[in-house]
Amino acid sequence: MKKRQLLKKQIKHIDIKSFDSTPMIKSMGEMAFQARNLARAAEIYDKMVSEEDVTIILCLAGSLFSAGLKKLAIDLVRCNMVDVIVSSGAIIVDQDFFEALGFKHYHGTPHIDDEMLRKMSIDRIYDTFISEDDLRICDLTVTKIADSLPPRPYSSREFIKAMGEHLYKNHPEAESVILECYKRDVPIFVPAFSDCSAGFGLICHQQKRGKAEKVTIDSAKDFLELTKIKIKTADTGLVMIGGGVPKNFVQDVTVAADVLGHQVNMHKYAIQITVADERDGALSSSTLKEAHSWGKVDSGFEQMVFCEATIAFPLIASYVYHRKSWQKRKPKRNNRFLDERED
Amino acid sequence: MKKRQLLKKQIKHIDIKSFDSTPMIKSMGEMAFQARNLARAAEIYDKMVSEEDVTIILCLAGSLFSAGLKKLAIDLVRCNMVDVIVSSGAIIVDQDFFEALGFKHYHGTPHIDDEMLRKMSIDRIYDTFISEDDLRICDLTVTKIADSLPPRPYSSREFIKAMGEHLYKNHPEAESVILECYKRDVPIFVPAFSDCSAGFGLICHQQKRGKAEKVTIDSAKDFLELTKIKIKTADTGLVMIGGGVPKNFVQDVTVAADVLGHQVNMHKYAIQITVADERDGALSSSTLKEAHSWGKVDSGFEQMVFCEATIAFPLIASYVYHRKSWQKRKPKRNNRFLDERED
Amino acid sequence: MKKRQLLKKQIKHIDIKSFDSTPMIKSMGEMAFQARNLARAAEIYDKMVSEEDVTIILCLAGSLFSAGLKKLAIDLVRCNMVDVIVSSGAIIVDQDFFEALGFKHYHGTPHIDDEMLRKMSIDRIYDTFISEDDLRICDLTVTKIADSLPPRPYSSREFIKAMGEHLYKNHPEAESVILECYKRDVPIFVPAFSDCSAGFGLICHQQKRGKAEKVTIDSAKDFLELTKIKIKTADTGLVMIGGGVPKNFVQDVTVAADVLGHQVNMHKYAIQITVADERDGALSSSTLKEAHSWGKVDSGFEQMVFCEATIAFPLIASYVYHRKSWQKRKPKRNNRFLDERED
Amino acid sequence: MKKRQLLKKQIKHIDIKSFDSTPMIKSMGEMAFQARNLARAAEIYDKMVSEEDVTIILCLAGSLFSAGLKKLAIDLVRCNMVDVIVSSGAIIVDQDFFEALGFKHYHGTPHIDDEMLRKMSIDRIYDTFISEDDLRICDLTVTKIADSLPPRPYSSREFIKAMGEHLYKNHPEAESVILECYKRDVPIFVPAFSDCSAGFGLICHQQKRGKAEKVTIDSAKDFLELTKIKIKTADTGLVMIGGGVPKNFVQDVTVAADVLGHQVNMHKYAIQITVADERDGALSSSTLKEAHSWGKVDSGFEQMVFCEATIAFPLIASYVYHRKSWQKRKPKRNNRFLDERED
Repeated sequence: MKKRQLLKKQIKHIDIKSFDSTPMIKSMGEMAFQARNLARAAEIYDKMVSEEDVTIILCLAGSLFSAGLKKLAIDLVRCNMVDVIVSSGAIIVDQDFFEALGFKHYHGTPHIDDEMLRKMSIDRIYDTFISEDDLRICDLTVTKIADSLPPRPYSSREFIKAMGEHLYKNHPEAESVILECYKRDVPIFVPAFSDCSAGFGLICHQQKRGKAEKVTIDSAKDFLELTKIKIKTADTGLVMIGGGVPKNFVQDVTVAADVLGHQVNMHKYAIQITVADERDGALSSSTLKEAHSWGKVDSGFEQMVFCEATIAFPLIASYVYHRKSWQKRKPKRNNRFLDERED
Repeated sequence: MKKRQLLKKQIKHIDIKSFDSTPMIKSMGEMAFQARNLARAAEIYDKMVSEEDVTIILCLAGSLFSAGLKKLAIDLVRCNMVDVIVSSGAIIVDQDFFEALGFKHYHGTPHIDDEMLRKMSIDRIYDTFISEDDLRICDLTVTKIADSLPPRPYSSREFIKAMGEHLYKNHPEAESVILECYKRDVPIFVPAFSDCSAGFGLICHQQKRGKAEKVTIDSAKDFLELTKIKIKTADTGLVMIGGGVPKNFVQDVTVAADVLGHQVNMHKYAIQITVADERDGALSSSTLKEAHSWGKVDSGFEQMVFCEATIAFPLIASYVYHRKSWQKRKPKRNNRFLDERED
Repeated sequence: MKKRQLLKKQIKHIDIKSFDSTPMIKSMGEMAFQARNLARAAEIYDKMVSEEDVTIILCLAGSLFSAGLKKLAIDLVRCNMVDVIVSSGAIIVDQDFFEALGFKHYHGTPHIDDEMLRKMSIDRIYDTFISEDDLRICDLTVTKIADSLPPRPYSSREFIKAMGEHLYKNHPEAESVILECYKRDVPIFVPAFSDCSAGFGLICHQQKRGKAEKVTIDSAKDFLELTKIKIKTADTGLVMIGGGVPKNFVQDVTVAADVLGHQVNMHKYAIQITVADERDGALSSSTLKEAHSWGKVDSGFEQMVFCEATIAFPLIASYVYHRKSWQKRKPKRNNRFLDERED
Repeated sequence: MKKRQLLKKQIKHIDIKSFDSTPMIKSMGEMAFQARNLARAAEIYDKMVSEEDVTIILCLAGSLFSAGLKKLAIDLVRCNMVDVIVSSGAIIVDQDFFEALGFKHYHGTPHIDDEMLRKMSIDRIYDTFISEDDLRICDLTVTKIADSLPPRPYSSREFIKAMGEHLYKNHPEAESVILECYKRDVPIFVPAFSDCSAGFGLICHQQKRGKAEKVTIDSAKDFLELTKIKIKTADTGLVMIGGGVPKNFVQDVTVAADVLGHQVNMHKYAIQITVADERDGALSSSTLKEAHSWGKVDSGFEQMVFCEATIAFPLIASYVYHRKSWQKRKPKRNNRFLDERED
């Protein structure tokens, strides 16, 4: 088999505007089990969107964009249904930035010889393939961006903004969350920024600089910036896909504000779509009720949906999109707020 | 109910030296399903330990130390059965450093009113309780350490070494992985270092410094340092408990070495204990065979064990401990190696 | 709190005709992970329906009808999209027959004191409540039916047909799978028939009869009857919701036919919606590829969908309904075939 | 590859007497998450054993004996740590009876071409292989036993007793739960008895008899017999491995006794080892607290352990064995009780 044959059928991103899940969600709200939970999560998300003053934070973990959920996220940004993004590195760099550079994800299969794939430089994500060669170009583009920046500690948000600027200049037509957020001043935080293609790019940059001044990624600055957004915002709502670091990071900011001496409200709304379960004590699966004991998430409007995101998230997002509560929202432009405070 | 009543029965750490799982593991190797997988993982870990030149990297994710696995990790470090640790922040700071300061985790229950806990400042981790007040002292100790350091970008490893020094001076008797690793020059990396109590401590430090020079945490430096260890080491073995960022981070270094122009072997050995499953495409659950397609993990000596870590890890660790292959191992002192290269 | 207050909001059954999932399914087929699996399962089901000669067997396990999936099953029967049903007892008796007698399932919550529920005679199914008193009437109705039948061994199918006749005479307007199948001669098998409300009814009957002749339930006869259907049918397709006994039972008939000396094809098509996973060796989660080694399920057109049924099944069923391939199908009336062979 | 090569390394059964899990269990009781749950389940089982009057019912589902847990069950029967068994069919017939006839289970792998296995008549159970030819002999032996019995409706218990007699006469040295229970008058119930190799055997018998009198399997009689045991017993304890029909069946008997006009206690003790989770509403995973709302399981001494049985059950059973509370227990000989009532 040839590499070209295995990288043939592209993954396409689902368009939540092309179908209306409203009648199905309405019915699911009358049922039981995860159908009812999913419907309730959709209602809570719509409630967040209806309250103009609520800052909505989207948390992303898992291989979501390689699986076809990128366009969905772009649509949420365009409709002001998301004001801040906190994500794992792979989604933002290896998947979004990667596709913005013109590369693709392909239909694959888990029933295949991984040694054969390795020899062909094909990387597998469960049932999806990409070319390792393409990914290396993505790494090197990050190096190029780092090389071009004044050497100093950056928050991941600042660095991702620079990636957005790179796309704006070189790939202005790309369908990209980074680009869309750049244009709309929506901050993107990646708390473990070196844990992805960006990490490869950055160590190349740092290695080259040797003992000279270089770009560094200050993860504490990320936490401080996100906390500043929480402090200036009365109420916040969380839309969490998967768990992991993004979930924990964003839940922590209410406590962080307190530590810095500011009284803030707990996150008022919170929904999470996950397949994890809570019984092993891992964070990804810790329930939103448990988060309440920590003073992180308010009770009342929180809902877990135990379902894989490629099925559940389009259903929920299509519902909230078609309810049109977002039409009254305005962009919050938190990048401007943070950059101004910086100066 | 009073707070004191809920924080009464302390979690105690299991001692893998106090029982010998060898006969049970031997039998499990003759069975099927997860028993056989667990036995095979134990064999592979013993194989890693038997090869003196193999650098063994322990990856930790999930609330493992609050659940009683801290002493187990200390014993592995003491017996040179671990040469490098890569962990989530909570385990190292909120749990290990926290207990080293004299605080405790307590038996709790998930069947309780979380609003009541919140009012009492009790934080819940599934069936475990801690005092939020104690945790705040932990945060502030991190601030104090940051305040005392020369302002510059630090890898998490460097900062955690400073925490070890703090314990060495102020709590020399503490039962602590950080302290033990400090004394034995074992590096600890936390790729998402702000995503825990350390984050709280660091933003207090940075906020106080304002525009002045300050301590920053450079996650790219972490990645570069871990890659340097991989480059100087012929062979590596991974012992992964849970998935998440630590798993991904450590798997990536074989590719990172390649990006920096060094030909290195894939990780030769890899075991993972997890309850996640692979079907949602999340990293925590991606199988070690999938990692092989990326050129990260060699095939042949890899084994997933689908079981909760509090049950599976003591069985495996007790087996390898009692096999005594570790008695021939010498400390690798990778902290010295990295600090020398720094200068 | 009063019992009436807890049994207030009725579960309503989703209507797959009221929304068209086609555009969503089409998009999901271009994605990855469970979205793509779900789309492929929908395509395979449509393929079964398109081939007039394929006998479609619906397997049901889990509390599906109490959760709002009863109407969906009725619609499948009405459209000849199902030719045989194999189910767990609770779905057919405690849920379908129960509702046909006029009783209801109600919105409940898992976050409640189960001892309080017990005292109120409210039974909980995760987040759903029913009245134990209503269920006892259901039990007794089964006793009455048994009392009215000539004493002899019955297959569960024969007994359920008698329950259909009871509904036809006494509750002709009921929305019931049993009733619909009775009217359309669709056989329903419940291989563990005593393991539900029917069991309660039957032991009352048998206890009353003492040593006299009585109605007995011959589970071997079930197996023989289902095997006879397989023998007379060229090709079969399985639509499995959950696993358990129904899944195993129906897969076994291809081997059973062979044991009886008839060469038959493996099941040509098979889809399964489940949240179980395969790693513990339990039947519910054994993959359809594993079934192939046993010569039960053919390879090529089989698909697992790892998703909770209340979400996945309506999406799939609505798609197949709106494709209209079913309009060319005719009822197979397997009850008549079996009853004739009986005589 | 030849069939003989794939069927080479036999599965061996773990011997809970050969290692003492007591120190490990004691430590696990001081930890958190599933370790603590497992320790608590072991304590509860020991409590059941300590109370001589408690009838202990062991429920088995999943491929437990093919995975090496058969000897464990035999030891529990020999030590009077089990008074009644309720099981899925495969465990008792396809696995226990199968091995008693001299056949074996073999180490296999899930990473194999199932079509190749099918052509070789090798059946796969996750990572275990058996010869389909051997299984056919097992089926036919059931036919032979059925042929030899007076035609009438039998409970599965009665039929399994006849299988025990067959072993007693023809394979008196076999290591078999059926044989051991036969010798000690321990009843074994299989509520879905046709759903396994016994089903194949029985339909051959019934087909041969045609319209003549034949052996039938009355599942209602099973339920009635088990309920009679509950009625004559003050207190009962449940040890459940997996869920499914056996779990539901045995939980139902407290309600069944009530339906028959007898006031009985709920099951006083209940432990369950499972990997299922409760969120899809399936029975296997419904928690023991939920069962309490139905009046089936008492609260106070119930414990779920979320762990695969091949790991958890030997740990628990070895603990209870070595505590020696069983030494005061006497055999309950419920087969005699039921057979006397029959006459």
